[in-house]
Amino acid sequence: MFKINDNYQKLPGSYLFSTIAKKVNEYSAANPDKKLIRLGIGDVTQPIAPAIIEALHSAVDEMSKAETFHGYAPDLGYEFLRNAIAENDYKARGCDISADEIFVSDGAKSDSGNIQEIFSEDNRIAVCDPVYPVYVDSNVMAGRTGTYDPATEMWSNVIYMPCVKENNFVPEFPKETPDMIYLCLPNNPTGTTITKAQLQEWVDYANKVGAVIIYDGAYEAYISEDDVAHSIYECEGARTCAIEIKSFSKNAGFTGVRLGYTVVPKELKCGDVSLHAMWARRHGTKFNGAPYIIQRAGEAVYSEAGKAQLKQQVAYYMKNAATIKRGLQEAGYEVFGGVNAPYIWLKTPDQMSSWEFFDYLLEKANVVGTPGSGFGPSGEGYFRLTAFGAYENTLEALERIKAL
Amino acid sequence: MFKINDNYQKLPGSYLFSTIAKKVNEYSAANPDKKLIRLGIGDVTQPIAPAIIEALHSAVDEMSKAETFHGYAPDLGYEFLRNAIAENDYKARGCDISADEIFVSDGAKSDSGNIQEIFSEDNRIAVCDPVYPVYVDSNVMAGRTGTYDPATEMWSNVIYMPCVKENNFVPEFPKETPDMIYLCLPNNPTGTTITKAQLQEWVDYANKVGAVIIYDGAYEAYISEDDVAHSIYECEGARTCAIEIKSFSKNAGFTGVRLGYTVVPKELKCGDVSLHAMWARRHGTKFNGAPYIIQRAGEAVYSEAGKAQLKQQVAYYMKNAATIKRGLQEAGYEVFGGVNAPYIWLKTPDQMSSWEFFDYLLEKANVVGTPGSGFGPSGEGYFRLTAFGAYENTLEALERIKAL
Repeated sequence: MFKINDNYQKLPGSYLFSTIAKKVNEYSAANPDKKLIRLGIGDVTQPIAPAIIEALHSAVDEMSKAETFHGYAPDLGYEFLRNAIAENDYKARGCDISADEIFVSDGAKSDSGNIQEIFSEDNRIAVCDPVYPVYVDSNVMAGRTGTYDPATEMWSNVIYMPCVKENNFVPEFPKETPDMIYLCLPNNPTGTTITKAQLQEWVDYANKVGAVIIYDGAYEAYISEDDVAHSIYECEGARTCAIEIKSFSKNAGFTGVRLGYTVVPKELKCGDVSLHAMWARRHGTKFNGAPYIIQRAGEAVYSEAGKAQLKQQVAYYMKNAATIKRGLQEAGYEVFGGVNAPYIWLKTPDQMSSWEFFDYLLEKANVVGTPGSGFGPSGEGYFRLTAFGAYENTLEALERIKAL
Repeated sequence: MFKINDNYQKLPGSYLFSTIAKKVNEYSAANPDKKLIRLGIGDVTQPIAPAIIEALHSAVDEMSKAETFHGYAPDLGYEFLRNAIAENDYKARGCDISADEIFVSDGAKSDSGNIQEIFSEDNRIAVCDPVYPVYVDSNVMAGRTGTYDPATEMWSNVIYMPCVKENNFVPEFPKETPDMIYLCLPNNPTGTTITKAQLQEWVDYANKVGAVIIYDGAYEAYISEDDVAHSIYECEGARTCAIEIKSFSKNAGFTGVRLGYTVVPKELKCGDVSLHAMWARRHGTKFNGAPYIIQRAGEAVYSEAGKAQLKQQVAYYMKNAATIKRGLQEAGYEVFGGVNAPYIWLKTPDQMSSWEFFDYLLEKANVVGTPGSGFGPSGEGYFRLTAFGAYENTLEALERIKAL
């Protein structure tokens, strides 16, 4: 009789967004006259930029003729896209990353979830707390996390690095030595980040203890401060300890278009074994490339017109972020993030729990956000609002919150 | 110090298509005047059908406006596509599969590689020999296959089911009981298949011994004979033992468009645990949906115009298959497949090895095919030609072979 992967049974239910949806639906049904404003989920709302739309149409036309039709893509991505990424995201910033170290994928979520596969089951992971749930969940499925304690909401074999206002949301080197360190910077959900000098300390630490850093840079396009690294490869020594995962979802609105990439430098090794070769083998065996037309859309992200249009799109969302941040501060809230990321992280007032504040905001202001506790135990007492809504709605939401 | 997944080190090099490419390049360089005809790889050559191109353009336009923009897709696929699949691929054939048992993905290769994750590491797999390499390789990576013997090209913990002319390419129930049985029917690479009655025996066997069948139906659109099942769910009892993986690559030319789906019936359980729920959790954690515009393309596959155009496309390739099969027979070869699949499998003449025949065909007829031994030890002495080329080239290739 076949048996299942028992690790799946250890996963607690994924209640966060379903509980939110349930509460929102119940409230809406009971109050059909109320206009809700949703600043909860991390999905974008602005349409795809004209330069990218043009590239998509053009690629679709290519697929309609035998002479320009494209079948199976190269496993690791088309050269035109890998070159554009290497040139713009790395060489232009002085990072020594070549096109053949870039693996194009269908998105950062897939890569974030799959990357752990090439590592030993015995490795111990460290994560920031609060954190994007995929890192821990994918390691639970692989059997790396030990047992779950519902009381603390923590796994026995995971090293948690609390990021709270007391430490300025800067993760500290853990007491126990991790093998794999997940860092998402700028951070989801807190919207905070660390300086390049602080990141350099993490790179030095990883090289010293022999850990690999899985660096999720999905929110890189929102960085506005000069002393923040746009890539971990801006740090010296990162080529021997870091894998970087990037997304087109937030810088180009590709949440429904699906494109991402992962960089595995050729110097990153375990003994003699190249992780680059392992990830190439994983890609070649379990993935068949991102769609040709989507890779052409990705290329257009780096065109002159594309860059200009996306700069405006990012500015649009960051205007929302500033509106939320200023509005909350005016209303007396303690607020974090929103400067280098499209997320605003607020401390709930009057010792309210994250969920109590969720209910309060839903019922009194008809605004939907995300309870911080849903991202990890250290998120308790915090709350996330996102800048991805329409400007008018964002403005109105803040007027309502200020009027409470 | 972090450690790697050592199972990757067990994988022998993936030499098949790289060795072919190397030999072909060397021959071309030495003989620049020769016009090679490639009937080797399984990639399509016909452009995307007009009804699908129209759907793609229309979906791209939707993405260009805020009112019709689509962000994150539902994890498991858009309802419009899942409904179209359920209606056309299942209900229309009398199969009891509902839309919410269908999981839309970026392709059958991903699903074929990933599906093993939800099963225990202790499970023993059975595969046909020769076979599509992804089934075995993905299980090697997961540590299920034991050790590799280079002499026999077999894994100590894999159950091989030889499919050779002596058994009409029909896999026989293995002596040892497997937990997971991979069946690709119609088969890649042999182009052969089994009758619905024979498939029913496999379903009965799986239910009896408590095995799960992973049924790869990528070539279903090429079935021309009445007694061949288009889905394993045409068999009684399949809902309690079978997962079906389907592709849009071969029926609609989506090799570079990327779309597929997997069916996990709700009755498929291990004790109390639903495999449907496990696969949903896997999808939700490590995948973020197929692109909206690609899912609209998938929907167009099932439109009246799409169906008519794709029927012609399949007929075009099957005319090639018939041309190859007849031509080879006229030239005195022993030939299999090509009736319910776009692959022709031939017995090499004069006891030539697969690679000897590869060289012979390349040098004497300037035709590129695929050595059968590359798909498994029982493929030795066989050779694959594909029907996915242009008709004119296929015709010329056969004239050349006949003239040898």
